This record gives sequence, structure tokens and C-alpha cells, in this order.
Amino acid sequence: MDETVLRRLLDDVRSGVVTPDDAVARLRRLPFADLGFARVDHHRRLRQRVGEAVYGPGKTPEQCALIVAELLAEPGGGPVVLTRADPPQVEAALRVAPGGTVTGTGALATVVWRSAPARPARVVVVTAGTADLPVADECAAVLRAYGLAPTMLVDCGVAGVHRLLASADELAGADAVVVVAGMEGALASLVGGITPAPVVAVPVSTGYGAALEGVTALLAMHATCAAGTTVVGIDNGFGAACAVARILP
Amino acid sequence: MDETVLRRLLDDVRSGVVTPDDAVARLRRLPFADLGFARVDHHRRLRQRVGEAVYGPGKTPEQCALIVAELLAEPGGGPVVLTRADPPQVEAALRVAPGGTVTGTGALATVVWRSAPARPARVVVVTAGTADLPVADECAAVLRAYGLAPTMLVDCGVAGVHRLLASADELAGADAVVVVAGMEGALASLVGGITPAPVVAVPVSTGYGAALEGVTALLAMHATCAAGTTVVGIDNGFGAACAVARILP
Amino acid sequence: MDETVLRRLLDDVRSGVVTPDDAVARLRRLPFADLGFARVDHHRRLRQRVGEAVYGPGKTPEQCALIVAELLAEPGGGPVVLTRADPPQVEAALRVAPGGTVTGTGALATVVWRSAPARPARVVVVTAGTADLPVADECAAVLRAYGLAPTMLVDCGVAGVHRLLASADELAGADAVVVVAGMEGALASLVGGITPAPVVAVPVSTGYGAALEGVTALLAMHATCAAGTTVVGIDNGFGAACAVARILP
Amino acid sequence: MDETVLRRLLDDVRSGVVTPDDAVARLRRLPFADLGFARVDHHRRLRQRVGEAVYGPGKTPEQCALIVAELLAEPGGGPVVLTRADPPQVEAALRVAPGGTVTGTGALATVVWRSAPARPARVVVVTAGTADLPVADECAAVLRAYGLAPTMLVDCGVAGVHRLLASADELAGADAVVVVAGMEGALASLVGGITPAPVVAVPVSTGYGAALEGVTALLAMHATCAAGTTVVGIDNGFGAACAVARILP
Amino acid sequence: MDETVLRRLLDDVRSGVVTPDDAVARLRRLPFADLGFARVDHHRRLRQRVGEAVYGPGKTPEQCALIVAELLAEPGGGPVVLTRADPPQVEAALRVAPGGTVTGTGALATVVWRSAPARPARVVVVTAGTADLPVADECAAVLRAYGLAPTMLVDCGVAGVHRLLASADELAGADAVVVVAGMEGALASLVGGITPAPVVAVPVSTGYGAALEGVTALLAMHATCAAGTTVVGIDNGFGAACAVARILP
Amino acid sequence: MDETVLRRLLDDVRSGVVTPDDAVARLRRLPFADLGFARVDHHRRLRQRVGEAVYGPGKTPEQCALIVAELLAEPGGGPVVLTRADPPQVEAALRVAPGGTVTGTGALATVVWRSAPARPARVVVVTAGTADLPVADECAAVLRAYGLAPTMLVDCGVAGVHRLLASADELAGADAVVVVAGMEGALASLVGGITPAPVVAVPVSTGYGAALEGVTALLAMHATCAAGTTVVGIDNGFGAACAVARILP
Amino acid sequence: MDETVLRRLLDDVRSGVVTPDDAVARLRRLPFADLGFARVDHHRRLRQRVGEAVYGPGKTPEQCALIVAELLAEPGGGPVVLTRADPPQVEAALRVAPGGTVTGTGALATVVWRSAPARPARVVVVTAGTADLPVADECAAVLRAYGLAPTMLVDCGVAGVHRLLASADELAGADAVVVVAGMEGALASLVGGITPAPVVAVPVSTGYGAALEGVTALLAMHATCAAGTTVVGIDNGFGAACAVARILP
Amino acid sequence: MDETVLRRLLDDVRSGVVTPDDAVARLRRLPFADLGFARVDHHRRLRQRVGEAVYGPGKTPEQCALIVAELLAEPGGGPVVLTRADPPQVEAALRVAPGGTVTGTGALATVVWRSAPARPARVVVVTAGTADLPVADECAAVLRAYGLAPTMLVDCGVAGVHRLLASADELAGADAVVVVAGMEGALASLVGGITPAPVVAVPVSTGYGAALEGVTALLAMHATCAAGTTVVGIDNGFGAACAVARILP
Repeated sequence: MDETVLRRLLDDVRSGVVTPDDAVARLRRLPFADLGFARVDHHRRLRQRVGEAVYGPGKTPEQCALIVAELLAEPGGGPVVLTRADPPQVEAALRVAPGGTVTGTGALATVVWRSAPARPARVVVVTAGTADLPVADECAAVLRAYGLAPTMLVDCGVAGVHRLLASADELAGADAVVVVAGMEGALASLVGGITPAPVVAVPVSTGYGAALEGVTALLAMHATCAAGTTVVGIDNGFGAACAVARILP
Repeated sequence: MDETVLRRLLDDVRSGVVTPDDAVARLRRLPFADLGFARVDHHRRLRQRVGEAVYGPGKTPEQCALIVAELLAEPGGGPVVLTRADPPQVEAALRVAPGGTVTGTGALATVVWRSAPARPARVVVVTAGTADLPVADECAAVLRAYGLAPTMLVDCGVAGVHRLLASADELAGADAVVVVAGMEGALASLVGGITPAPVVAVPVSTGYGAALEGVTALLAMHATCAAGTTVVGIDNGFGAACAVARILP
Repeated sequence: MDETVLRRLLDDVRSGVVTPDDAVARLRRLPFADLGFARVDHHRRLRQRVGEAVYGPGKTPEQCALIVAELLAEPGGGPVVLTRADPPQVEAALRVAPGGTVTGTGALATVVWRSAPARPARVVVVTAGTADLPVADECAAVLRAYGLAPTMLVDCGVAGVHRLLASADELAGADAVVVVAGMEGALASLVGGITPAPVVAVPVSTGYGAALEGVTALLAMHATCAAGTTVVGIDNGFGAACAVARILP
Repeated sequence: MDETVLRRLLDDVRSGVVTPDDAVARLRRLPFADLGFARVDHHRRLRQRVGEAVYGPGKTPEQCALIVAELLAEPGGGPVVLTRADPPQVEAALRVAPGGTVTGTGALATVVWRSAPARPARVVVVTAGTADLPVADECAAVLRAYGLAPTMLVDCGVAGVHRLLASADELAGADAVVVVAGMEGALASLVGGITPAPVVAVPVSTGYGAALEGVTALLAMHATCAAGTTVVGIDNGFGAACAVARILP
Repeated sequence: MDETVLRRLLDDVRSGVVTPDDAVARLRRLPFADLGFARVDHHRRLRQRVGEAVYGPGKTPEQCALIVAELLAEPGGGPVVLTRADPPQVEAALRVAPGGTVTGTGALATVVWRSAPARPARVVVVTAGTADLPVADECAAVLRAYGLAPTMLVDCGVAGVHRLLASADELAGADAVVVVAGMEGALASLVGGITPAPVVAVPVSTGYGAALEGVTALLAMHATCAAGTTVVGIDNGFGAACAVARILP
Repeated sequence: MDETVLRRLLDDVRSGVVTPDDAVARLRRLPFADLGFARVDHHRRLRQRVGEAVYGPGKTPEQCALIVAELLAEPGGGPVVLTRADPPQVEAALRVAPGGTVTGTGALATVVWRSAPARPARVVVVTAGTADLPVADECAAVLRAYGLAPTMLVDCGVAGVHRLLASADELAGADAVVVVAGMEGALASLVGGITPAPVVAVPVSTGYGAALEGVTALLAMHATCAAGTTVVGIDNGFGAACAVARILP
Repeated sequence: MDETVLRRLLDDVRSGVVTPDDAVARLRRLPFADLGFARVDHHRRLRQRVGEAVYGPGKTPEQCALIVAELLAEPGGGPVVLTRADPPQVEAALRVAPGGTVTGTGALATVVWRSAPARPARVVVVTAGTADLPVADECAAVLRAYGLAPTMLVDCGVAGVHRLLASADELAGADAVVVVAGMEGALASLVGGITPAPVVAVPVSTGYGAALEGVTALLAMHATCAAGTTVVGIDNGFGAACAVARILP
Repeated sequence: MDETVLRRLLDDVRSGVVTPDDAVARLRRLPFADLGFARVDHHRRLRQRVGEAVYGPGKTPEQCALIVAELLAEPGGGPVVLTRADPPQVEAALRVAPGGTVTGTGALATVVWRSAPARPARVVVVTAGTADLPVADECAAVLRAYGLAPTMLVDCGVAGVHRLLASADELAGADAVVVVAGMEGALASLVGGITPAPVVAVPVSTGYGAALEGVTALLAMHATCAAGTTVVGIDNGFGAACAVARILP
């Protein structure tokens, strides 16, 4: 799926520079680094526009640090992102790779190295309540890593709809909007009805018991009457940022 | 739990008019009529303000007709309501008890006999879409039975919030509001934020697959950020009407 | 949606006191205070009868304290309520705003400032068991904030139905009843059958495994055969109190 | 697991009447009849007190008829029961085995051959509503097959608790009680609190959407606060009858 | 529902010993003790055969102790049981009421005072694995409180069916069997096929993730092919014991 | 939220052309047409870029036809779309508004009037199997209505990954990709890993029982390891097309 | 991933027989036939041992017939299987490709062309009840297509465990066992405990309501205490046969 | 079910060496050791090929140690495995039975004694991400216990499909493959499409909220389009290893 590389390889085979057996071996070896406990995908940035990120949960601090280092070792490799990291993971990664920017606390820190230069696209991140901030902050940190510094509109839940309408200009004029909302997730429908921009909704696991740890918001956002709104996984601020990075190349 | 009756009975026992054995038997026999297949609760209207209604599903047309007749046989007994009736049930009931008002079609007809006189309370029934009309109609029919002719606001889904705001006056000035909404049910949150009146939300089983036949709307309405909104069961327009009848005595 | 204000604004525009540009800006700025991490809705009390409450979970102690202070800064602004607060949140709020009344312990404290004067309406809060008390206490604290001191009937589960019938008078004579019940939530159906008053049921996350942390009670309360009973979210004593405040203006 | 038979077999082996090879073969062949599409368990009545019943769904009419015939072919074999049979299955079975008693209609008929003689135990079957009758009728038909003609108390839902209390004597004096209830299933808790007898609850798939086709009642019956109440599967009137037959040998 | 008491009361009214007003008051006051936080049901033992038990979770240690004391204060009142108690609750209860027998550890202790004399009925408690022991022990402790010392068969899971068949005699000869099983709960079906006795199945919240904390076993036990098996709630060893106490009076 | 309109209105008020009362009335009446059973949102196209579509289910054929006619009555109003229409609805709409293009059969027809002119953006719709075609066809019909004629890649399920890789060029060069997949929905993850374009995934309700009518695919698509993939509701080909129309203005 | 083909292609490139551009094109074109509505995977048999099967639901009869014809057009291509076909699909396929063997009726027919020659491996298919036969028959038909004629053991449910033990020899001596069971699915655990062979369990959507259309059996089979038992999807007899074909090459 | 033993016993009975009574007793006593809290199944290795393993959760350290000791006491008894053990359990077991090999940490250790000699079969364990390693390690430890040292392919998630294709040779040439994947579990479908070997998929409880602690992956793996893939329970690396041990005898 990397046509130029393939074509060049076949030319090399044709001209005898490379033997067929070597060619097979190379084809089998698209650029990734096998660390034993991880296959680091250096190729992903070319293929998907956003590079591979390191998802903290389930990894030891050492594994996090080594994968970050491997990604940073690639010259000109673009932003490197560590998400959902707990303090020992953050510390280990920063020891190996100083200079990362840390956003968030507890077990939800995002660390970014080598941010992309700022771009003019207007991205808005809007939250239903204050309790949605940690997820919105993760999203914003990853957006900033890709040069897309967002405008934050916090606490615009639909129970006081004027708080949202007060920001109608920002929403109507945005190039992309991320809606971060727990409880019943109704904010996504309302925003989807106000803006013509692409809307990416993030269900959040906040709220009393009937919020079912985000499942209620996820289902509600999918059943939205605001056509064209899309949804990412529960609490997945990182995924929403990546979706925006795909939309605004 | 019917203190006056009990007190009178005990007075009768005291004065010898009634033997203790008879008293026991009578206490055991609060006013209901045992039809064999049903125990018709004549006492309910006194106890709960709204009389017993006949729920169609699972009953034969004959059973529906006989229960309706039994309820109408009580002189001065207030409105009699048959809900979720299919055509054979409607036909059987009207044959036994002509003069009922039929609302709705298919397997969702509501039939009302002996409606209460109209009352001045302002009730608003608002729906998110046209597809929510059958449930809203059931609710309105039962409200009318109890003398509470509602204002209907149809198709005010949040994707076009100005359609709802156009009716903000009716909502702000209502004595009670019923919100009928399928899909993500967000309308309940929005209405709950606009009106100080009691809001009863009815989740409806409409929408694409992720609406999960009303479960999504039910959960979302419970996770609402509009404090003080209450919810009845899926598609239960009848229940919402009864709730309003309790609220506006 | 605040017609008088709007009309006055338009008059001012007409008379030249206000320029159209300023009018647009003002319309966009219905009264809320943007604290950066929260948009405090000063307008809510007018709009919804009950003011905005501060929901603790997901907020830092400082955020809780600042929002409480902002709400109290409004002169004549009515009761201010902080719910589901943990000890650091309670402490921070009371340091900034001394004089609040604290109900409940652990992570479930309710703090109330500036309670409304007592009103004569008869509200009954009935629980199925002793384990439902924390939720019932939250409900009662919020009711008292709004001047609606409730009668508490504790431990009236249906397995000993005479314990409930012993309080039939209070129930039959109430203006509104809140039923707080975990396990199978059957108490709501029974109470709904005894009283003509509006009944708001609160499912509670107590009970053995099959109680599914309140989902069983929530579903059962929705499937109730006692017509006109309404339901709020799991453990949402606060929401039930707000519903009563809407019903009894 | 049939010690006497085994012991006799081993005695026969010892005395040479039976060879070991035959003994192995016999041990492998506890009394069942292999019809190819079914292994009819003639031994079940001895082992479990209630004989094998034929469950209609998923079987062809011919298969139903042949299994019934096989069971009736056993002399002195006790009652034979065909459950959940649709009209073609009933017709096929009655053609092969005339004289069966049919209860119920549609796809829910129960057919009984060779009923046991009546026994004095007092069994009560109580239903919450008229719509629960088909399941209660299945239960009663199977109880009668085993000689346990039940008293039927129909339509005793908790919304009119006096209808149930009117039958408190029957309940308190019963040897076993079956509660058949859909919707929220609260009747089981109430009955469990009134009678000292064993209570078997049958959740029924009736009610509005939130009844979730019986799952709500099943969960609620399991979360009951009436200790010692037991539950069988949704709509499983047959299973409840078998449970009673185990309890009252 | 306590006919003798009622009849005597009415006789007293008739003879003038008691005024009707006092009678009403008394009727409203069936024997329970209102401790403020609990209505202790002294009448339950008469009504349900097993007395009221104290369920620990959600109660303070003091509340547990006071309810136990209240129950023990009734002379001749039968066994008193405290279930699911954690160490502080156990300690508080034993300080107020020394002499209780403690079974189980951690947050799952059962304490019994005033056990009933031993009775000859043969009860078998069988578990699928060693991990089911805590629930089985709760069940056994409550059974012993009611004089029904059970035989314990531990670790008879169906993966090694000979371990169960080795105890076929005990099972076939039992008066009642309790099956305690997590994971897939298949043991209930197997036992139900071996014994003619009443079988009460307890799903347990053990096993890998697909066991869904007992929900899988609960559903499987309800879908059992062994007719007449009944089920209680997840981990509810107490409920199973009460069910047996109802079955074996 | 339509600033220019509002500003002009206020100017008119200032200059006396419009009275304040009329202004209030107008503000309340953003352009929608109230048909009694529907509030047709003429304003939506301006606000959201895609105009209001008519969702068939739950509407009568007459209602569908009247709403379509109302939308077409707006001069220069852009495409009009009727989705999920059954034959009577299609027929009624075409009778009132001839010339619509019909896609799909049965209860899943899409009808389009007044398609937008074709645009050069490259959209790819890829399906996992042939059975996903009806949903993909709905998506394609709506895309064509908005001038975005898609390339269709049918039957590229991951079990034969070379079928997908054969189209890697189209995917890598696309401006937006819609993935339509039932069963386990894994195709979304794979496509998300191959293309840098925005990916909108549509879970489809096909597959054996464990596909849970699309819920499995929906959940799996949300749990995807391909960062930046977004999801719309089950079978919601229409919603996916609208999302693409937002992304590619 | 088809090394020999790739190596030969590269040799051809090297020797100049094939140009690099053609090579790229060929690599992109692993053997499948694009019928427009389907990409028929001729390569699958080599890759996965079992060829591609045609899954009926969601396809038109014509599509089924054309795919079958395409697969049969490959000379020496091994068995061709059409599953879950309804009568029009069967008829269309047999018209295009006469000589197929049809198993099953209604919407569940399996058609096989070009069966593989019989192989000696001993496969046993065991069902819990007669109602599981349609799924077991689908499994057997596919097994026979691959030359693995199974022994069928029908109606061996655990409620009469001797019926299973009677076939212990076949089970213990099998090379692979498929267990087909609805209801609680306990048969899988029991069989898994008796045989050392690989056990593939198929949950079936039969049984009363608590069977949840196969979900209960699926979960129970996953929570099995018989280590090493594996599971396929609900009603997926075809998948179980393919699993066996992988195990017994 | 152990024919030779049975036959010999019957021969002994016939020849008078064993009395029938003793024979019955022996038949009842297939080799297991009753430790009171556990019935250790020494017979399992013969019957199922893999011996009984000790599952840690829910057992005291002492119970774990005693069962391990009992299993090791059997001379020539094959590998002994303790799974899901926490540190106190590991310590207790190693004190009683030194020399065990420990894999994994925290509450997920696997301890193996008396490993089987290495065998030549090629088993591949492939994981989607680094976070799946603990489950994969459990699987590998148990495989090694049975002499099946696996090749580990770590971090081959489908978002970078070339990482998997790079190992296509190992997969295509394997005798059995275990796929360990959380999130959406799509790796199982992809691997199932690449290899003809038996594929056993293990869903893992990793990933953001929509992964539902492994339920999403479990369902997705069951809905797989790669025919013949089988699934074990969530996080059940042990079960997957046992399945492989059944497949490769």
C-alpha cells in the first residue's frame, strides 16, 4: 500500500540490484521497530496523517518510555503523544525524553513531544459541564500536538440553553466541533443543529447511576436527531482529536 | 386505609348492627367486583384520583368489554378508559358500551367513556417528531378524559431548536408539560430547562437501531441535566396523563 | 425566552438608547457568569423555579467553592445547594461560604446555604429500608432548602406491608410523595396505589447482585402497574426533590 | 445412580446370570428410548418425581406425537404432558393419542394425558393481571396433571392491594403459592410477605416497553425484599408447576 | 391478615372494652417497633415462618446493633440473624448482644442468636467449586439458625461429574437441596436431574469476565432444562436458606 | 443564531419600520412551516449545510407527501430527501412531487428531488459484505443528492484482506470514506489504518445472533484501535452521508 | 502472503517477462472475482483450508446463484456451500447449478455442491434437545461437504445425564466434538468434562424467555468450568463445522 | 465412563474377589480426593488430557497450597498448574511445593510444577497490543506446562496491518494460533483469514469505556466473518491454552 516504495523495489529487482528473495523479505518488513513487547509503527504517520500514539493503560512505565524514545528516534517524525498515562509512566517517559508537555493529572495525563506548528483552522471543543473537563483537556492537548489549538467552551449544558447560544457565533463559524458530554449527551444534538461544521461527539462517563458510565450518552448520541453528527468511544478525547486531524488535513 | 368506612364499620360493630364475623368478612371485601378473570377495582378512583383503566394487551375482546361494562355500571363513577386496544377489542367494547370516543388506530386505540368536565389547567404535550404522535395522542386522549384538554406542540426536536423556542411562551406558562420523544430523548432536557412547570417525559420506541426501541431515550431522560424532570415507561402516554392528573387535582 | 427583558431591550433599541449591535451582544449574554471552568446560570431560578445546584463529582474543591461563591454573590438569589460533595469539597465550600448546613457523610454530603422559608405543603419521603437512608436524606436536605420540610417514613418495605399501611393517613393526605427504594423497588407500586398525590420514585443502588446497582429498581418502577407514578434517575434524591419543587410551586 | 438396580445387576454378574460385557452394556442403557430425533427418558419420573414433558417449540408435529406415544406406551407411567404446543402439534398428538385434555389456545396449548388422582394439598396460583392468565393457565394445567388442582386468584396487582388482602386467608393457609406477574413483578414481594408457604414466582413477558419482555419482572423478583421467595424462568408456568410438584411430594 | 387478633379486637369493640377510635389506631399498629431509622417487624415470624433478618450493607454498626437488640427483646421470638455484616457491624452487635455465633469473614459475616432446636429434615448444600464456599457458608449458617443443619458437598462442578455422582445417594434422599454455583451454573441442571427433592439454585458472582458477576449463572439457571428447579438472587445464600425454611416447615 | 437576520430586524425596529411587538413575534418565528403534524424546518439548510430530510417510519403516506411538498415549495431550497420510506409512502410522495429518484426497495427506499450538481470530491463507500448493500445504497443515494457521487467498494470483509488491499489506492486517495459493516465491524479498523482520510463507520444489523442486530458492530467500531475513526447509528446510511456532507462543504 | 506466487512473480519481473507496473497491478489482484455486488474470494480455500461459503441472508436469489456459479467455475475448487438460504435462494442456486444437496427447510437450508471425499476422522455432533436439530443439521451438512460425516447424538440434555453417559464411548473416542445446545447450554460443560477431544460449543436460540435468544447459552458456555472448551456464535452450526475442518486438516 | 476399569471391576465381582457392595462403593468412588473444601479430581488428566488446574480467586492461600500438594502427590501425574494467583497464594503454594515456575505478577500469577517435555508442534500466540500481554503470558505459561512452547507475536493490531503481515509465515505455518485482543477484537477476524490453522480467540478486558471490559471484543469475535474461528471467555488465557492442548494431543 505504499506504491512508490513498492515500485522502486520492483525496479531494483528487475535491474538485478535486489534479489527476489531479498525483495520478499523487504516487503515483509514495512517500517516498524520490534521492541519485543511492542511493534512500533513508524509508518503510521504517512499512512494515516497522525502518527502512532502510546496508550498508557496496561503498559509498564519502562515500556511507555521505550516506545516514546523509539518514536522520537525517527528524525522528522512529527508529534509524539502518550495518553492516559499515570504518574510513574509520565515520570519514566520524561526521564528518557525530557521536554514533553504534560496535560491533566492522576491517571489521565497526556504528554506531547515535538508539537506540530500552529495552523489557522478554527476548532471548538464544547463541554456540557465542568466534570467533562478532563476528557476535553485530553482532546485539546492532542489537538494542540497537531497544531490545532482549539477554543474551549466549558459548561454549556442544555438545561441552560442560553449559555450555548451565547457562543453560537464560534460554533457556526467553526471548521470542526468536538462535543464532550456525559449524562444524557443531549448537547451533541443541540450543537449539531446549530453548526454546519463536522461535529464529533465524545460520550463521557459522568453522571448518576442511570448514566451507566457513559453508555447512556453513547447510545443517545447515536440516536441523535441532528443528522451528520458522528461519535467516538466513551471518554475518548484522544480519538476525537484524531478524527478532527483527519478532517482538517 | 379507607378510614371513614372502617370507622363506620366499627361503630356498627359496637352498636351490634354488625357481628364481628361479618365485619371481618366486609373488611376483606373492599369494593371490587370479581369477574373471575379480573378483580375490577371500583375503589381506585377514590384512592388514587384516577379510576382504574383497562389495559388491552393480553385480554380477549370479551374480557375488555365486560370490564368496561362493570366500571360503567358504577353510578357516578367518573371516566372509564380502555387503552392499547386493537380493533376487535374496540368493537367489542363499543358494542357493550356505545358512545365511547376512540382515539388512535391499529393496535393502539384509546377509548373513553364518560369524560370529566373540562378544567382550566394549562397542560402542554410536546413531541420531538411526527413519529411520536401515536403516543402523544394516547396521552392527550386520557388527559381529555380527565378534563385536561392539552395544547399539542408537534415536531419540536432539538435539531431545530428555534421550532421549540417559538413555543417558549406556552411552555413557560404551562401548569404541566408532557414531553414525548424517541431517538435520543434530548427534548426533555431542553424543555426542562425552559419551563418551571412539572415535566413528565415519555420515551418513545422510534428511531434507528441504536435507539434500542426506546431504552436509549429512557436512559437519557433519566440522566438528564435538567433537574426535576421525571420519566414514565417507554411509549406510556397513558401513564404520563395519569401523572399529570395526580399533579393537577 | 425571557419576554419582558427582550421587549424592554427592543424598546430601548427603538428609542435609540441601545444600538442594534449592543442589543445583539446583550441577547447573546443572558445572565450567566463565565468562570472559565463553568458558566454559572444565574438565570435558572427565574426560568425553572429552582436555582442552579452544584454537582460535586468531577469538580475540584476549588471549583466547587468558586461556583458556590458566585451563586451566593447574587443578591436575593434564593437557596444555593451543593450535592454529592466529598469532605474536601465540603471543606473548601464552607471556607469560602461559611454557614452552610451539611447533611450526609462520606462522598454524599449535601450543603445548603440561604434556605427558603418553610411552606405548609405536606411532602412525605418514604423509604423501603434503612439502607436507602442516604439517598432519602439528600432528597430531604434539598426539599428543606426549598422550604418543603418532609415527613420521613423509614423502612416500610413491602415484605411487611402493615408497616406501610400504618402510615396510610400520611400518604393519603400528602401533597406529594417521594418513594426511595432499592432492591426490587416494589414500594413505589404500592404507594402509588394508596395515595392520590403525585408520586416520584427514586431507584436506589442497594441490594444483592440481581439488583444490578439500581437498574432493576429503575426498570421495575417504570413497569409499575400503579398508573401515574413517575421516576427519576438511580440514587437521584436531588432530582426527586427538584421534581417536587416543580409540582408544589 | 439407581442403587437397587445396580446392586441387582452386580448380584446377577456375581452369580453368572449376566456376563460382565452385558452388564456394561446394560449400565450404559438406563431406560430411555432412542427415537433418532429424541432420547425419551422413561426413567425421569422415578428420578425426579415428575415425568418427562414434551416441550413443543422447535419440534415437528410428528416428533411431538411420536414422543407422546412413546411415553404413553410405558405401562403405569404416570401423567404425560405436552407444553407450548401449537395447533398442528396438538392435532398430531391427539390423533396418535386421543383423550388428552387441552388447556390454552394459539401457540401456548398444554395437553395432558393420564392425569394423577387429585390430592388434598392446597396450592394457590395468583396473578397480577388478566394478561397473565395464559401463563397461569399453563401452570394450573400441569398442576392438575399431577393431582394438585389449584385455587386461582386472578388480577390481584399491588396497585389495588385490598384485592389481594381479600384473599389473605387462602394465601396464609396455602401449602404452596405460585405468583404469576408481569410488569414490575411486585406482587411476588407482597405475597412473600403475607404467607409462610413456599412461594414460586413466575415473571411474565407482559407490559409496556420498560418491562423488557419479562426481564424486568425476573430481575425484580430476584431482588425481592421478601426473603425465601424463589423464581423460575420468564413465562415458565410449566416450571413453576414442576417446582410445586417437587415441594409437595 | 392476623385473623384471631382482628376478631378479638372486634369483639372488644362490640363489648365496649375498646372504642372504635382506639381500634382504628390499633389496627394501624400491627406489632412493629419504630426505631426512627427502622421499623422492626416483630410480626414477621408469625406471618412468614422465618423472622426478620438484619441485612448489614448500608446500615451503621449502631443501627445493626439496635435492631438486633430490639428483635432479641421480644420474649420467645425465635432465631435472630444478622447477614452480610462487616467487622465493625459484627463487633457492635456482639457488644450489645453477646453470645451470637459468627460464620464467615470480611464483609460477609453471618451472626446468629437464639438458634432453633435441630430438626431431622435432610438438607444438602452442594457447591460447584471451592470459591463458592462463602455463599454456601452463609446459607448453612442461616439454615442452622432454623434448626436445619445441612450436609455440605463442596466442589462438585460438572467438569468432573463423577465427583457429583459419588454423592448421588445424599442428593436422591434429600428433603431439599441448595445448589451454589458461579461460572456457568450448570450444576443446578445436573442436580435437578438427579434428585426428586425441591432444588433451590444460588448463582454466585465468581468466574472470569464472561461470568458477568453472576448474571450469567442466574440466566443459565433460569433457562435450565431440569424442570422444577427454582432460583434466588446472585450470592443470596440467605434467601436460599429462607426458601428451604418455607419448604420444610 | 442567525446574526444577519437578527441585526436587520433590530435595525428595522430602530427605524420604526417594525414595532417591538412584531419583532418579538418574528424572533419567535424563525422560518419553519407548521403543518400541524410537523414543523418543517426551512432554515436547516442554511444552518446545517444539509437541508431537513423526511424520515419515513411512523409517518402516514399523506404526512410524508405533504412535508416533501412543503420543502419543495421553497424556491432554490436545495435537495429534498425522503428516507426509509415504504412503498405507500414512496407512491404518495411521488404523486404529489413527481420526478424524484428512488433508490432501494421494500421499507428502505430513499427518494431524492432536486439533486445538487456533481462535485469533484472523492468519496468512497466500502462494505464488508453483500448483505450490507441496502444500507450502503441509502448512503450513496443521499451522497448523490448532495453532489457527492461515491465510488462503491462492495464485499471487502477482512476475512479476505487482499480484496480490500486491492482497492488501497482508492482508499488512500479518498477525501472521505464511509465503512458499512455488520457482523463484527472489523472493516472499520482496517480501513482506518490504511487511509488518512476521515472515516465514518456505519454498523449494520446483519449477521448471526451474536451480532445482536448491530449492537456488536457499533460497540466494536467504538472500541477500534484505529484512532480517529468515527461512528454513526446502526443502519444509519443517511447519517453517514450527512456527516460526509459536513466534512466536505 | 502467498509466498510461492509472490516469489514467482518477482522472478518474472527479474527476468523481464513481467514489467514492474504489471507486477504491482497483479499484486493488487490476488485471485478474486469482482461481480459488482460481491468480491468472490477464490483464494480462500488455499489460505484457510475451507473455501468461501455463501451466506444467504441479505442477498437476492440472483446474487446467491451468481456467486455459487462463480465459485463452481473454478476447476478443482473444492466444495461449494450455500448457508441460511430461503426457498427462493435455494431454487435460484439450483437452477444455475443443478446437483446440489439440500439440507434443512424454511429459511435455514444448506446446499452443498462438489462434496469432498469422505475422511476417516471421527466427529461427533451432540445436541441437548430435539429443538436444536436445525442448527445441528446445518453443522452436519457442512461437515459432510468437507468429508467429515459426523455421528449424531440427539437429545442428550443434562436433565437426564444417563442419556449422555450412554454415549460416553463415542465422545471419549472422538477426534472432535460439536455440542449444540440452547437453554442454559450446560451440555457443553458436561461433554467437555468427559472427552479429551477438542470441543466446539454452539449456543442455540431456543428456550423460554430467560434464554434471551441464545445469549444465555453463549455466556454460560464461555463461563464453563470445563477448561479448553471453545465457543462459536449463536446458531452458528456452519462456523462450528469450519472450526472442526481447521482442527482436522 | 472408564470402561476398562469398570470391566475389570465387574470381572472381579464375577470371580468373587470383590463383593457387589464393595463394587457399588468403588463405582461411586472414581479417583478424587475429598479435602473437605475441595474434591481434587485426579482422574481428570486421563479423561480430558489436561489435568485439573487450581483457579486461585476465592480460595485461601492454604486451600491453594493443599490442593497443589494433593495433585503433586499423585506419582506420574503430569503438570500441575495454579492460575490467577495473588502473592499470598503463590507464596503459600511454593512453600508447600517448592520448584514451581512463576509467570506474571500482581493478582495474575501462574505457577507451574512438573512441566511436560517440549513437543514440536508450532503454536503461535499473537496479541493486538502491549496491554494484552498479561493474558497472553498466562496462556503461554500454561502452554509451556503442556510442552507446547509458543512463538509470541506482540502488538500486531489491525490499525497497522503490515505488522501482522510481516509475520504471515509464522501464522500460515502454525499448527494452532491463539489471538489475544481487547478493544474491538478485530485481530481475530484478520488472523482467521490468513491462516488455515485452528484459531482460538481470547477477548481481553482492555480499552476505553466502549470496550465494556471485554464484552465488546467477545461479541465481535463471535460475530466474526472469518469462519471457523472459536472463542473462549474474557481474559481466559488459561482456557485458550487448554483448548490448544485438546487440539494438539
